[in-house]
Amino acid sequence: MKNIIVAQSGGPTVAINASLVGVLREAVDGGKYDRVFGALHGISGVLKEDFKELTIKDENGGFSYDKELADLIYRSPSSYLGSCRYKMPEAEDDESSYKKIFEIFDKYEIAAFFYIGGNDSMDTVAKLSSYAEKIGSDVRIAGVPKTVDNDLIITDHTPGFGSAAKFIATSMVEITHDTAVYEAPCVTIVEIMGRDAGWLTASSVLARNEYSSLPQLIYLPEVAFSEKSFIEDIKKLLEKTTNIVVAVSEGIHDSQGVYLAATSKAEDRFGHAQLSGAGKVLEGIVKGELGIKCRAVELNLPQRCAAHLASGSDLKEAAELGAKAVDFTAEGSTGFMPVIKRLSDKPYAYEIDKTDVRNVANQEKKIPLEWINEAGNDVTGEMIDYLKPLIEGETGVTYKNGIPVYADISHLTRPQGM
Amino acid sequence: MKNIIVAQSGGPTVAINASLVGVLREAVDGGKYDRVFGALHGISGVLKEDFKELTIKDENGGFSYDKELADLIYRSPSSYLGSCRYKMPEAEDDESSYKKIFEIFDKYEIAAFFYIGGNDSMDTVAKLSSYAEKIGSDVRIAGVPKTVDNDLIITDHTPGFGSAAKFIATSMVEITHDTAVYEAPCVTIVEIMGRDAGWLTASSVLARNEYSSLPQLIYLPEVAFSEKSFIEDIKKLLEKTTNIVVAVSEGIHDSQGVYLAATSKAEDRFGHAQLSGAGKVLEGIVKGELGIKCRAVELNLPQRCAAHLASGSDLKEAAELGAKAVDFTAEGSTGFMPVIKRLSDKPYAYEIDKTDVRNVANQEKKIPLEWINEAGNDVTGEMIDYLKPLIEGETGVTYKNGIPVYADISHLTRPQGM
Repeated sequence: MKNIIVAQSGGPTVAINASLVGVLREAVDGGKYDRVFGALHGISGVLKEDFKELTIKDENGGFSYDKELADLIYRSPSSYLGSCRYKMPEAEDDESSYKKIFEIFDKYEIAAFFYIGGNDSMDTVAKLSSYAEKIGSDVRIAGVPKTVDNDLIITDHTPGFGSAAKFIATSMVEITHDTAVYEAPCVTIVEIMGRDAGWLTASSVLARNEYSSLPQLIYLPEVAFSEKSFIEDIKKLLEKTTNIVVAVSEGIHDSQGVYLAATSKAEDRFGHAQLSGAGKVLEGIVKGELGIKCRAVELNLPQRCAAHLASGSDLKEAAELGAKAVDFTAEGSTGFMPVIKRLSDKPYAYEIDKTDVRNVANQEKKIPLEWINEAGNDVTGEMIDYLKPLIEGETGVTYKNGIPVYADISHLTRPQGM
Repeated sequence: MKNIIVAQSGGPTVAINASLVGVLREAVDGGKYDRVFGALHGISGVLKEDFKELTIKDENGGFSYDKELADLIYRSPSSYLGSCRYKMPEAEDDESSYKKIFEIFDKYEIAAFFYIGGNDSMDTVAKLSSYAEKIGSDVRIAGVPKTVDNDLIITDHTPGFGSAAKFIATSMVEITHDTAVYEAPCVTIVEIMGRDAGWLTASSVLARNEYSSLPQLIYLPEVAFSEKSFIEDIKKLLEKTTNIVVAVSEGIHDSQGVYLAATSKAEDRFGHAQLSGAGKVLEGIVKGELGIKCRAVELNLPQRCAAHLASGSDLKEAAELGAKAVDFTAEGSTGFMPVIKRLSDKPYAYEIDKTDVRNVANQEKKIPLEWINEAGNDVTGEMIDYLKPLIEGETGVTYKNGIPVYADISHLTRPQGM
């Protein structure tokens, strides 16, 4: 038997399940492996032997899977197998969990392990593959990239990001319509995820079109934020329009690196510390300095789970990366992560390659400074060319009783002991 | 010539433009009127003669309109004609604006005026129709209902509400998937619009399905909120699950009527008052009292502008109400608002009637107490039966470059003097 385990880790995205299905389809339909076990809640599910088998034994003694369910999982938000934030110790410090994992690999006749996640998960992949090498195990260990933040290096972009960008751009268009209706001047601050890398905030630029240049201002964590320049930027816009919309990263900070959000700590009436977001802080500044209407809007969790607005190209690539990871392990590779290499913007073309996972783990990709304008309040055309292909295509949502249908995930929250 | 003016007022919704198109189509295609003028920014656009004509003179001397544009406006969020918060004075106190409006009605050969809006707008309709009666004008004055809050009386429900409810239910399903992935207990508080009426918050109940009873708790402004009971409710749930999701109205208040949000005023580092929302206040309570992970999510503006998730039945009814308002005026009625009379829940059936607008103006419809459970933390089956038909159907979104296409509204924010 040549079986595999697949698991998911880190914050969920809209595309992380497409990668899972990509692994499953290629393992079975591609005839690469026999049984596919999903480990629940990441690597900790492996340690606890908490598996959900994704394959079914068919009448010929081979293994197949429920294709209808796989299609449903493909377009469902969040991690179908659950997640964890477990960080593996160094094997030199504590070998016990490594020993246990490889015993379980033996027990289940595992030929390859696939870990779908961000840079913390790639650290786990690096450690497990080093340990496999050390003990002479031939279990192949592969990472499959995902993160809404798009902050993994080497790969052109990361599954999950395109769908989040599509949600942000769409919401931004809708918000700019909503804020256009009154005659009195109004500033709307839209706070977007991404504490250290501004990719998601930058994607709000895609809301601009033939009749609208909104959001007029985009502030990213890659450049120091100045309150003085911000107020000047708003004043200048007020000379020609009443409808000002600003996109701002939750992680903007001043030239000393002090986060705008972190410095506005206040206590509520219960004495609990309240951490206002960057948007709320800017709302206070606009109201205080300019005395005009201002509203902060935080896009929040829907950015990473609004599967009804998934990017078709994002899910397709996520599945391809999962499938390619299977192929690479079947060819003998280990300790790698498949990556997207962009060949051209227009027409959009890419190929899938791989990189040693140690090149990726614990690193962070920020926006190149030349893709940000000189004033530090907007992005350039190169950024737009980069972003455009990533939000293309829709996935076709199935509605039941007026609500999108997603895969049953009650296996993740079953009561203890069941 | 028998022309009409149509205008929009109050907060925008996803369905307010469908009513506008309903008026336009019935006026022209129904052969009821000649030219259709849209007044920009509500009644203040009438006073300023700031019109955007929606009809086009055709070669036969009759009037038609751009059907493709009308279809696009139909499914576009926000108010295509803009809005205002202008409140008409009493005619006894100040007749000047009334005189001016009726002079403009004469000048443009206006036979009927349609005001699409909420209860404030119905106050304007009531005042204008009383004045018309007083001066013996035969200009017909009609209201067309809209409000996301669903708080207009007499009508079974209000256009705009169904689409907002569909967005809330969908986002809630997606959020409950997202929050299910970790093993550690976590409470997620979703704050929903509706300060005095809980209809929107109640619609989160539609997120429940065969595999999920989330959100487990729903707190509405119609019943007094008790922090003690809230903590007890959470503790009880923690005995059987780790994934707790709570829907809460922005307007929850204690038995003294003190808003939870209003009492948590704090100052940020700039000395500006920061008003934490009800969700953020509850987040502080959960963290402080139970010491577990808690996250507040405010759904915010997308609730009333996420047109890509519009309810098909909502937009259809919105257009029908606009069309019926045209028919009623053509038959001689004035000073009325068309209303939806529900005939049955299953199968859903309704008819459109009308009511004297003075019955509606300045009143507010709250959730009947018998539709809320005894513990005051959930809604009953009657509420679910009421809500279900309102989110049915989708509208078919056209995407361009990965983003929904909506109508150009740059006429609303053109620079002064252009």
